[in-house]
This record gives sequence, C-alpha cells and structure tokens, in this order.
Amino acid sequence: RRRCRRWRLYVIVGSEHTGGREVPAVVQAAIAGGAEVIQLREKSLSTRALYHLARQLREITGEAGVDFIINDRVDVALAVGADGVHLGSEDLPLPEARRILGDKLLLGATAHSLEEALKAQAVGADYLGVGPVFPTATKPDIPPGGLKLLREVVSRVSLPVVAIGGITAENVREVLAQPGVKCVAVVSAVAAAPDVKEAAARLKRAMEGMDFDAAGSSP
Amino acid sequence: RRRCRRWRLYVIVGSEHTGGREVPAVVQAAIAGGAEVIQLREKSLSTRALYHLARQLREITGEAGVDFIINDRVDVALAVGADGVHLGSEDLPLPEARRILGDKLLLGATAHSLEEALKAQAVGADYLGVGPVFPTATKPDIPPGGLKLLREVVSRVSLPVVAIGGITAENVREVLAQPGVKCVAVVSAVAAAPDVKEAAARLKRAMEGMDFDAAGSSP
Ligand code: NI
Repeated sequence: RRRCRRWRLYVIVGSEHTGGREVPAVVQAAIAGGAEVIQLREKSLSTRALYHLARQLREITGEAGVDFIINDRVDVALAVGADGVHLGSEDLPLPEARRILGDKLLLGATAHSLEEALKAQAVGADYLGVGPVFPTATKPDIPPGGLKLLREVVSRVSLPVVAIGGITAENVREVLAQPGVKCVAVVSAVAAAPDVKEAAARLKRAMEGMDFDAAGSSP
Repeated sequence: RRRCRRWRLYVIVGSEHTGGREVPAVVQAAIAGGAEVIQLREKSLSTRALYHLARQLREITGEAGVDFIINDRVDVALAVGADGVHLGSEDLPLPEARRILGDKLLLGATAHSLEEALKAQAVGADYLGVGPVFPTATKPDIPPGGLKLLREVVSRVSLPVVAIGGITAENVREVLAQPGVKCVAVVSAVAAAPDVKEAAARLKRAMEGMDFDAAGSSP
C-alpha cells in the first residue's frame, strides 16, 4: 500500500471522455506516455460490461507494471484483481469498502476540503484525490480549492495526495511546487487529447527535474 | 443455503415499480402480506443511495425473519449483510461472484432456458429464477417459456426453482401444480398493487392447500 507514494501521473479514463475511441487503446497510449496509475471511471455500463472492460485493463496495466484502480465498484475491483478502488461521496462509505476489500487493495478517497481529507484519513483511506485545484469542465459544480487547498491538506494529513482538477502541462509545475504534492491526476487532459501518448508524455516532461523528495514532502 | 427451499412467495421491489411509494413501506407491506423473501432491484441509484436503501431493508427484513436478496450488486450485499445476491446476464459472472461472496451468501441466477439453467447450476448457483412463465410487462422483450420451461428445468436441475413472469393470484395454482415448483416471484403484481399487503396475502391464500411436498419435488 505504500506504492502510491511513487505515483507521479495518475490518468483517469472512462468511455465518456475518450472522444469516441476505445478505452483500452486510450489506456495503452497513456501508459506509453508515462502514466504510472490508471483509474477506470464508468458510470453507465452494466456490471457485466464494466467487468469485461476492467479485465482488459487489468491485463494491459499488469503487463506494463502500472497500478490499476477502479472508481466506485468494489465488487468489480475484487472480481478482476485491481490494485485498488477510488471512492467519492456517492459511492460506498469508506469503512464498509475497507471491510469488504481487506487490507491488500488500495483505497482512495476524494476530498474537496480539509475536513473531507481529515475524515477520509481517519476512516482508513490509503491516498487522497484532492481538488478541484483549478476550474474544470469535468466537475463544473464544485468550486476549485486552488493551491491553497493542496497546502492545507498536505500540512495536516500524512496520506499521499493526488492533486486533481484542471491540471495541464502548463500549470503542473506550479502544482508540484507545493511541498508534499508528488502526483497529479488528469481526466480529459490526457484521455480526450488528440494524441493521448503525447499528452501524457508532455505532462511527464513538464514534471522533469521537480524535486519529489523536497522538504515538506510526506515521508 | 438450504433455506430457499422453504420460500413460497418471493417479492421483487424497486423504486421504478412502486407507483411512487417509498420502497421500505412497500417492503413492510409485502412482508405483512406473507412474503418470505424480498429482492431489491434498483438500476439507477448511486451506490451510496443504494447502500442506504439496502441497509433500511436489511433492518426491516431482519426484524421480520425474512430473507433479503440484492439484485446485481455483490458489493452492496456484502456491505449491508444481505442473505444473497441475484444475478442476471448483465451482472457479474456467477463464478466471480461466488469467489467474492464466499459460501455464506445465497447466489441466485436467472434462467430463460434449460441451457441457462444447467449452466447456472454447473457454476454454483443456489437457486434459479426461471421464466418468464407468462407474458409480462416487466420483461416485454423475452418470449415466455410457459409451464413447459418450468417442467423442463425441474426435471433436469436439482436446484430450487423460483417461477417468475406474469404470475398472479389467478394463475399461481397452475404454476405450483408443476411438480417441484414451490416458489413464485412477483414484481408489479405485489409492489405496484394499490394495496400491497392485500396483493401479497391474496397470492398466499391462492397457494393454500398446495402440496409442496408432492412427488417430483426437489428434496
Ligand atoms: Ni467529487
């Protein structure tokens, strides 16, 4: 469960945000561009269809040595042997999910505020998705917390933080300049890009030379 | 897992088929009318909303000593401590579900044909929902297999069979007259009835005096 401390680029993929391309092909390209972790986020597939898609992604990520997280669905994560589950406020409560998953799978939680971050840590999350950092079309209803939210969370919470929301190759250095922030998550910036591999690679190049072991980082 | 052999009236409830009434109130009434097992079938709630509803129903059914089955969602069934999960062709494959659920929870499967029934038995189902027996508005796309399908399945499969599809107080005796058929499932005939308790009780009265231990029954 400590492996999420090594994540730098976390790519979220779902069929609504691939511009009509097949999800497995988009995931292949994101990995080729440097993603270290893939989250599958699907909201409208049947359980059977989600299971088959997740199995394909488990195989692709497994061969690449990349972590594979499933949004919301604890059952599908267990069925395909995913590395973890990411839960938001509309998903199973964290303690229930932990009880079902056991200690082997990673449990990620979304936090839109310091309070949510502290609560998620208290109930056993392994990492936090914190945001939106910047305005984003994917979550237009949630006001961005900015870099200030990241700083607040990192200063009070010991879990690894994945910054999310409106992050691009242009602003990623600003995000990672916050002490303790070592990983960024993107949805459409990679999965909906005309060239997915290049979009991921551009983000990774923009991160080059950042000091991920800088003071203030979580150990 | 042998307790499904004692089921006679299996009531399926979901918010789409309650005529706008609250699901817990409908479930209370169905139990008061004589249902021995309740299945929650929801297709459009968030996982969190489904979890909260399922917890309520777990409490209601538990207090009444009635079995509680959840359609499709293995994760929610585990989270609320349901008695089992019912799986159709769009849900997790049975062997995967069994692996996650372990041996304590009941696993039901839908069979529209003898082939599906034999397959479900081979991969570890505890009981079979077999139908549609008669034409039904709930599944207008599937041609009814009639009493013939029930007879075929019961003669070749040793699992308890729950007959489903278009069953009413008027035709229930015809269904239960098939050797080995001891339980009927209803959706709108109870949950959408103006008086839910009376609709369930009417079905139970219509079943009175049927010889559930007749020759040909599964042991
Ligand atoms: Ni959110």
